[in-house]
Amino acid sequence: MIPVRGLPEVREGDDVAGLVAAAAELEPGDVVVVAHKIVSKAEGRVVRLDEIEPSAQARELAAGEDPRRLEAILSESARLVRTRPPLVIAETRHGFVCASAGVDASNAPEADTVVLLPEDPDASAARLRDRLRELTGAVVALIVSDSFGRAWRQGTTDVAIGCAGLRPLLDLNGERDSVGYELHATVIAVADELAAAAELVRGKLDRVPVAIVRGYAVRGEGTASELVMPRDRDLFR
Amino acid sequence: MIPVRGLPEVREGDDVAGLVAAAAELEPGDVVVVAHKIVSKAEGRVVRLDEIEPSAQARELAAGEDPRRLEAILSESARLVRTRPPLVIAETRHGFVCASAGVDASNAPEADTVVLLPEDPDASAARLRDRLRELTGAVVALIVSDSFGRAWRQGTTDVAIGCAGLRPLLDLNGERDSVGYELHATVIAVADELAAAAELVRGKLDRVPVAIVRGYAVRGEGTASELVMPRDRDLFR
Repeated sequence: MIPVRGLPEVREGDDVAGLVAAAAELEPGDVVVVAHKIVSKAEGRVVRLDEIEPSAQARELAAGEDPRRLEAILSESARLVRTRPPLVIAETRHGFVCASAGVDASNAPEADTVVLLPEDPDASAARLRDRLRELTGAVVALIVSDSFGRAWRQGTTDVAIGCAGLRPLLDLNGERDSVGYELHATVIAVADELAAAAELVRGKLDRVPVAIVRGYAVRGEGTASELVMPRDRDLFR
Repeated sequence: MIPVRGLPEVREGDDVAGLVAAAAELEPGDVVVVAHKIVSKAEGRVVRLDEIEPSAQARELAAGEDPRRLEAILSESARLVRTRPPLVIAETRHGFVCASAGVDASNAPEADTVVLLPEDPDASAARLRDRLRELTGAVVALIVSDSFGRAWRQGTTDVAIGCAGLRPLLDLNGERDSVGYELHATVIAVADELAAAAELVRGKLDRVPVAIVRGYAVRGEGTASELVMPRDRDLFR
């Protein structure tokens, strides 16, 4: 687990892969975990609150907080899952269920702005991975991560919202010997575990947005969209 | 991240800490992550299916599977959260919400048995920690882990169900600079992230039930019960 130190503050248009390649010595097979915040900033997924006109629903949900922030959350939501104003748990267009539809005011580039999730985090991951290969020659796996709360449990853990060069789910079904086992423990969300592990070395306050997991046996190919529970199997919709 | 190899199959009454101390060189500050399965086995938390008389409810939920397994799940449940026979998501007496109330037929010591969660996983963690200190002199943090599914996401990740010698939640509240940030990203469930990281090196099929996380800056004291969302803050009860 290697934190990538010394990255500058990222701005719209920046070459995030170039910054990572300059700050770290990548090796083939590394898993590079990038906090979505710097991906979003580089992709211009930042909204100025003074350009937002809050709707009546946003005002209602704000409960004394800034209704423009709630409007940004509503704009990013495909569906509201739970609300307790000003707290909103929403499903994003990607299918992720998370607080504030991933809209975050922390680490925003300036006051009175909010950072949104990347439009297509799997595409962001694939682009970063390709660019890292171009710049360094190293074939790596790439995870774009965010901190998600969980139902029934306190605190956030980092999960993969974008993924490239790695199968995000490790399916042990072929190797199980027990039918009863099938229901709950044969598929491991390794991309989420890698994101969580990376968070431990990145920290939140040290402003280290990238970490490398070295020595993990990367398998297969896939996208973080596979981590979204399909509608027909989801008991919690 | 160090997998502890060479542990024997664990049986009731075994000294798990003794087995770990013999198989690994512990250092002060290590986080020792132990899969609950071997803790449960050592504590005798194994039930023979032929000693179970399934209730009508268990038969109904079994949907063709073994109703005695469902009866074991019901016995471990404080509340059923979702059911789609034979799948049961339940809240345990500890407050954990997980598939099958943590009852697991995989890696059971023999066919026709199921393994339950430890009666008090925090107490198990504290006992293991104390015993490791006694045997090795090293003051370590100890996590008892299990693989939990998540609402809305595919696959399991390992989480902490027992904890000793470590504050399981890292609270950044004192250091934030933004009120809007407060709602969803200031408290990090580091114990769950440590359990997830350990799973990556333990693997499921290699039968390595213990891993050591070395070099993590362990802070404070606490129990995994703190990871259970308090009833009054839980939007998903």
